[in-house]
Amino acid sequence: MDAKQLLVIGASALPSSLVGSAVAQGVPHSGVQDSYVRVAELEIDPAQLDAYKAAAKEEIEASVRLEMGVLALYAVAAKHDPAHIRVFEIYTDEDAYKAHLETPHFRKYKSATEGMVKQLKLTETIPIMLAAKATSGGR
Amino acid sequence: MDAKQLLVIGASALPSSLVGSAVAQGVPHSGVQDSYVRVAELEIDPAQLDAYKAAAKEEIEASVRLEMGVLALYAVAAKHDPAHIRVFEIYTDEDAYKAHLETPHFRKYKSATEGMVKQLKLTETIPIMLAAKATSGGR
Repeated sequence: MDAKQLLVIGASALPSSLVGSAVAQGVPHSGVQDSYVRVAELEIDPAQLDAYKAAAKEEIEASVRLEMGVLALYAVAAKHDPAHIRVFEIYTDEDAYKAHLETPHFRKYKSATEGMVKQLKLTETIPIMLAAKATSGGR
Repeated sequence: MDAKQLLVIGASALPSSLVGSAVAQGVPHSGVQDSYVRVAELEIDPAQLDAYKAAAKEEIEASVRLEMGVLALYAVAAKHDPAHIRVFEIYTDEDAYKAHLETPHFRKYKSATEGMVKQLKLTETIPIMLAAKATSGGR
Protein backbone atom coordinates (compact mmCIF):
# COMPACT_ATOMS: atom_id res chain seq x y z
CA MET A 1 0.00 0.00 0.00
CA ASP A 2 1.25 3.47 -0.76
CA ALA A 3 -0.75 5.37 1.78
CA LYS A 4 -3.65 4.66 3.97
CA GLN A 5 -6.53 6.82 4.90
CA LEU A 6 -8.03 5.57 8.05
CA LEU A 7 -10.77 6.40 10.34
CA VAL A 8 -11.74 7.08 13.87
CA ILE A 9 -15.07 5.32 13.90
CA GLY A 10 -15.98 6.50 17.31
CA ALA A 11 -13.97 7.56 20.25
CA SER A 12 -15.60 9.78 22.79
CA ALA A 13 -12.62 9.19 25.04
CA LEU A 14 -10.03 10.22 22.49
CA PRO A 15 -7.81 13.08 23.55
CA SER A 16 -8.24 16.20 21.50
CA SER A 17 -4.87 15.67 19.84
CA LEU A 18 -6.04 12.54 18.08
CA VAL A 19 -9.50 13.83 17.33
CA GLY A 20 -7.88 16.97 15.95
CA SER A 21 -5.72 14.88 13.71
CA ALA A 22 -8.70 13.01 12.36
CA VAL A 23 -10.62 16.20 11.76
CA ALA A 24 -7.63 17.76 10.07
CA GLN A 25 -7.68 14.90 7.61
CA GLY A 26 -11.30 15.50 6.85
CA VAL A 27 -12.42 12.34 8.58
CA PRO A 28 -15.52 12.83 10.64
CA HIS A 29 -15.66 11.15 13.98
CA SER A 30 -18.37 10.50 16.46
CA GLY A 31 -18.89 9.38 19.99
CA VAL A 32 -18.04 5.80 20.65
CA GLN A 33 -21.55 5.13 21.93
CA ASP A 34 -22.91 5.97 18.50
CA SER A 35 -21.87 2.70 17.01
CA TYR A 36 -23.16 -0.75 17.73
CA VAL A 37 -20.61 -3.55 17.70
CA ARG A 38 -21.15 -7.28 17.67
CA VAL A 39 -18.83 -10.25 17.45
CA ALA A 40 -19.79 -13.50 15.77
CA GLU A 41 -17.78 -16.67 16.31
CA LEU A 42 -18.39 -19.60 14.01
CA GLU A 43 -17.13 -23.13 13.75
CA ILE A 44 -17.36 -24.24 10.14
CA ASP A 45 -17.42 -27.75 8.76
CA PRO A 46 -13.82 -28.04 7.47
CA ALA A 47 -14.97 -29.89 4.35
CA GLN A 48 -17.12 -26.90 3.42
CA LEU A 49 -14.75 -24.12 4.44
CA ASP A 50 -14.06 -22.78 0.97
CA ALA A 51 -17.75 -22.66 0.14
CA TYR A 52 -18.46 -20.95 3.44
CA LYS A 53 -15.81 -18.29 2.83
CA ALA A 54 -17.15 -17.57 -0.62
CA ALA A 55 -20.67 -17.09 0.74
CA ALA A 56 -19.39 -14.90 3.58
CA LYS A 57 -17.39 -12.68 1.23
CA GLU A 58 -20.39 -12.19 -1.03
CA GLU A 59 -22.59 -11.32 1.93
CA ILE A 60 -20.05 -8.91 3.44
CA GLU A 61 -19.48 -7.14 0.15
CA ALA A 62 -23.20 -6.67 -0.41
CA SER A 63 -23.86 -5.56 3.17
CA VAL A 64 -21.17 -2.88 3.22
CA ARG A 65 -22.08 -1.67 -0.26
CA LEU A 66 -25.87 -1.64 0.07
CA GLU A 67 -26.66 -0.92 3.71
CA MET A 68 -26.07 2.58 5.04
CA GLY A 69 -26.05 1.26 8.59
CA VAL A 70 -23.36 -1.36 8.08
CA LEU A 71 -20.12 0.47 8.77
CA ALA A 72 -17.69 -2.42 8.75
CA LEU A 73 -17.56 -6.19 8.67
CA TYR A 74 -14.21 -7.82 9.38
CA ALA A 75 -14.07 -11.58 8.95
CA VAL A 76 -10.96 -13.46 10.01
CA ALA A 77 -10.00 -17.11 10.47
CA ALA A 78 -7.79 -18.30 13.30
CA LYS A 79 -4.40 -19.03 11.78
CA HIS A 80 -3.95 -22.30 13.62
CA ASP A 81 -7.62 -23.32 13.45
CA PRO A 82 -8.86 -22.06 10.08
CA ALA A 83 -12.39 -23.39 10.54
CA HIS A 84 -12.80 -21.08 13.55
CA ILE A 85 -14.01 -17.78 12.16
CA ARG A 86 -14.68 -14.49 13.88
CA VAL A 87 -16.59 -11.57 12.42
CA PHE A 88 -16.22 -8.15 14.01
CA GLU A 89 -19.30 -6.14 13.02
CA ILE A 90 -19.79 -2.38 13.31
CA TYR A 91 -23.25 -0.90 12.73
CA THR A 92 -24.45 2.65 13.19
CA ASP A 93 -26.94 1.45 15.78
CA GLU A 94 -28.99 -1.55 16.82
CA ASP A 95 -31.74 -0.78 14.34
CA ALA A 96 -29.23 -1.03 11.52
CA TYR A 97 -28.27 -4.48 12.77
CA LYS A 98 -31.90 -5.57 12.91
CA ALA A 99 -32.49 -4.25 9.40
CA HIS A 100 -29.39 -6.11 8.21
CA LEU A 101 -30.92 -9.43 9.31
CA GLU A 102 -33.89 -8.84 7.01
CA THR A 103 -31.96 -8.07 3.82
CA PRO A 104 -32.08 -10.45 0.85
CA HIS A 105 -28.28 -10.85 0.81
CA PHE A 106 -28.16 -11.78 4.49
CA ARG A 107 -31.06 -14.22 4.13
CA LYS A 108 -29.37 -15.78 1.13
CA TYR A 109 -26.13 -16.16 3.10
CA LYS A 110 -27.97 -17.70 6.06
CA SER A 111 -29.77 -20.31 4.02
CA ALA A 112 -26.71 -21.07 1.86
CA THR A 113 -24.48 -21.64 4.89
CA GLU A 114 -26.99 -23.34 7.17
CA GLY A 115 -25.44 -26.76 6.65
CA MET A 116 -21.87 -25.45 6.91
CA VAL A 117 -21.98 -23.82 10.34
CA LYS A 118 -21.45 -26.31 13.17
CA GLN A 119 -21.50 -23.73 15.95
CA LEU A 120 -22.45 -20.09 16.12
CA LYS A 121 -21.93 -17.75 19.04
CA LEU A 122 -23.18 -14.18 18.81
CA THR A 123 -22.05 -11.55 21.29
CA GLU A 124 -23.45 -8.09 21.71
CA THR A 125 -20.82 -5.69 22.96
CA ILE A 126 -20.28 -2.28 24.45
CA PRO A 127 -17.40 -0.44 22.79
CA ILE A 128 -14.59 0.61 25.11
CA MET A 129 -12.58 2.31 22.41
CA LEU A 130 -12.71 2.07 18.64
CA ALA A 131 -9.69 3.82 17.21
CA ALA A 132 -8.04 3.82 13.81
CA LYS A 133 -5.66 6.10 12.03
CA ALA A 134 -6.92 8.99 9.98
CA THR A 135 -3.81 8.69 7.85
CA SER A 136 -0.64 6.74 8.02
CA GLY A 137 2.43 6.30 5.97
CA GLY A 138 2.28 3.04 4.14
CA ARG A 139 4.63 0.66 2.52
CA MET B 1 -23.37 11.15 13.64
CA ASP B 2 -23.97 13.39 10.67
CA ALA B 3 -21.86 11.61 8.13
CA LYS B 4 -19.21 9.00 8.13
CA GLN B 5 -16.18 8.56 6.03
CA LEU B 6 -15.18 4.99 6.06
CA LEU B 7 -12.55 2.78 4.71
CA VAL B 8 -11.77 -0.37 2.88
CA ILE B 9 -8.74 -1.48 4.81
CA GLY B 10 -8.03 -4.37 2.57
CA ALA B 11 -10.09 -6.40 0.27
CA SER B 12 -8.41 -8.21 -2.56
CA ALA B 13 -11.65 -10.07 -3.11
CA LEU B 14 -13.82 -7.00 -3.33
CA PRO B 15 -15.71 -6.60 -6.56
CA SER B 16 -14.62 -3.66 -8.63
CA SER B 17 -17.83 -1.80 -7.86
CA LEU B 18 -16.94 -1.49 -4.22
CA VAL B 19 -13.28 -0.80 -4.81
CA GLY B 20 -14.29 1.79 -7.34
CA SER B 21 -16.56 3.43 -4.80
CA ALA B 22 -13.73 3.59 -2.29
CA VAL B 23 -11.36 5.03 -4.85
CA ALA B 24 -13.93 7.56 -5.94
CA GLN B 25 -14.02 8.81 -2.36
CA GLY B 26 -10.27 9.16 -2.32
CA VAL B 27 -9.82 6.30 0.07
CA PRO B 28 -6.92 4.08 -0.85
CA HIS B 29 -7.36 0.37 -0.56
CA SER B 30 -5.04 -2.55 -0.60
CA GLY B 31 -5.02 -6.30 -0.80
CA VAL B 32 -6.44 -8.06 2.20
CA GLN B 33 -3.20 -9.97 2.71
CA ASP B 34 -1.42 -6.69 3.34
CA SER B 35 -2.76 -6.35 6.82
CA TYR B 36 -2.07 -8.45 9.86
CA VAL B 37 -4.99 -9.01 12.19
CA ARG B 38 -5.01 -10.39 15.72
CA VAL B 39 -7.71 -10.89 18.29
CA ALA B 40 -7.08 -10.63 22.02
CA GLU B 41 -9.59 -11.94 24.55
CA LEU B 42 -9.20 -10.92 28.15
CA GLU B 43 -10.93 -11.74 31.38
CA ILE B 44 -10.50 -8.82 33.76
CA ASP B 45 -10.82 -8.80 37.55
CA PRO B 46 -14.27 -7.17 37.91
CA ALA B 47 -13.09 -5.12 40.89
CA GLN B 48 -10.44 -3.51 38.69
CA LEU B 49 -12.46 -3.13 35.50
CA ASP B 50 -12.59 0.66 35.46
CA ALA B 51 -8.85 0.91 36.03
CA TYR B 52 -8.24 -1.64 33.31
CA LYS B 53 -10.39 0.24 30.82
CA ALA B 54 -8.60 3.51 31.56
CA ALA B 55 -5.22 1.87 30.97
CA ALA B 56 -6.43 0.22 27.77
CA LYS B 57 -7.83 3.47 26.39
CA GLU B 58 -4.58 5.28 27.06
CA GLU B 59 -2.58 2.53 25.39
CA ILE B 60 -4.88 2.36 22.37
CA GLU B 61 -4.85 6.11 21.87
CA ALA B 62 -1.05 6.24 22.02
CA SER B 63 -0.60 3.23 19.73
CA VAL B 64 -2.87 4.51 16.97
CA ARG B 65 -1.42 8.03 17.22
CA LEU B 66 2.28 7.16 17.46
CA GLU B 67 2.78 3.94 15.52
CA MET B 68 2.58 4.00 11.74
CA GLY B 69 2.01 0.26 11.68
CA VAL B 70 -0.99 0.23 14.00
CA LEU B 71 -3.97 0.72 11.72
CA ALA B 72 -6.79 0.09 14.16
CA LEU B 73 -7.48 -1.15 17.66
CA TYR B 74 -11.09 -1.87 18.55
CA ALA B 75 -11.73 -2.78 22.17
CA VAL B 76 -15.18 -3.98 23.21
CA ALA B 77 -16.71 -5.53 26.30
CA ALA B 78 -19.35 -8.25 26.15
CA LYS B 79 -22.64 -6.58 27.03
CA HIS B 80 -23.75 -9.37 29.33
CA ASP B 81 -20.29 -10.12 30.73
CA PRO B 82 -18.54 -6.74 30.91
CA ALA B 83 -15.30 -8.16 32.33
CA HIS B 84 -14.87 -10.19 29.14
CA ILE B 85 -13.05 -7.93 26.71
CA ARG B 86 -12.06 -8.45 23.12
CA VAL B 87 -9.61 -6.37 21.14
CA PHE B 88 -9.63 -6.57 17.37
CA GLU B 89 -6.19 -5.42 16.19
CA ILE B 90 -5.17 -4.44 12.66
CA TYR B 91 -1.50 -3.88 11.85
CA THR B 92 0.18 -3.24 8.52
CA ASP B 93 2.18 -6.42 8.93
CA GLU B 94 3.62 -8.77 11.52
CA ASP B 95 6.72 -6.61 12.01
CA ALA B 96 4.50 -3.71 13.02
CA TYR B 97 2.91 -5.94 15.65
CA LYS B 98 6.31 -6.99 16.98
CA ALA B 99 7.44 -3.37 17.12
CA HIS B 100 4.23 -2.47 18.95
CA LEU B 101 5.14 -4.87 21.76
CA GLU B 102 8.38 -2.98 22.37
CA THR B 103 6.93 0.52 22.63
CA PRO B 104 6.99 2.42 25.93
CA HIS B 105 3.19 2.87 25.95
CA PHE B 106 2.56 -0.83 25.42
CA ARG B 107 5.10 -1.80 28.10
CA LYS B 108 3.51 0.69 30.48
CA TYR B 109 0.07 -0.79 29.79
CA LYS B 110 1.35 -4.35 30.30
CA SER B 111 2.92 -3.64 33.64
CA ALA B 112 0.03 -1.46 34.83
CA THR B 113 -2.57 -4.13 34.01
CA GLU B 114 -0.59 -7.22 35.00
CA GLY B 115 -2.57 -7.69 38.20
CA MET B 116 -5.91 -6.93 36.55
CA VAL B 117 -5.91 -9.55 33.78
CA LYS B 118 -7.08 -12.97 34.97
CA GLN B 119 -6.93 -14.63 31.58
CA LEU B 120 -5.47 -13.64 28.24
CA LYS B 121 -5.93 -15.45 24.96
CA LEU B 122 -4.15 -14.16 21.87
CA THR B 123 -5.15 -15.36 18.41
CA GLU B 124 -3.27 -14.76 15.21
CA THR B 125 -5.64 -14.68 12.27
CA ILE B 126 -5.81 -14.78 8.50
CA PRO B 127 -8.21 -12.17 7.13
CA ILE B 128 -11.05 -13.52 5.01
CA MET B 129 -12.49 -10.13 4.23
CA LEU B 130 -12.03 -6.74 5.87
CA ALA B 131 -14.59 -4.36 4.46
CA ALA B 132 -15.86 -0.97 5.51
CA LYS B 133 -17.66 1.81 3.80
CA ALA B 134 -15.78 4.55 2.01
CA THR B 135 -18.68 6.86 2.79
CA SER B 136 -22.12 6.48 4.15
CA GLY B 137 -25.05 8.62 4.87
CA GLY B 138 -25.57 9.23 8.51
CA ARG B 139 -28.59 9.50 10.69
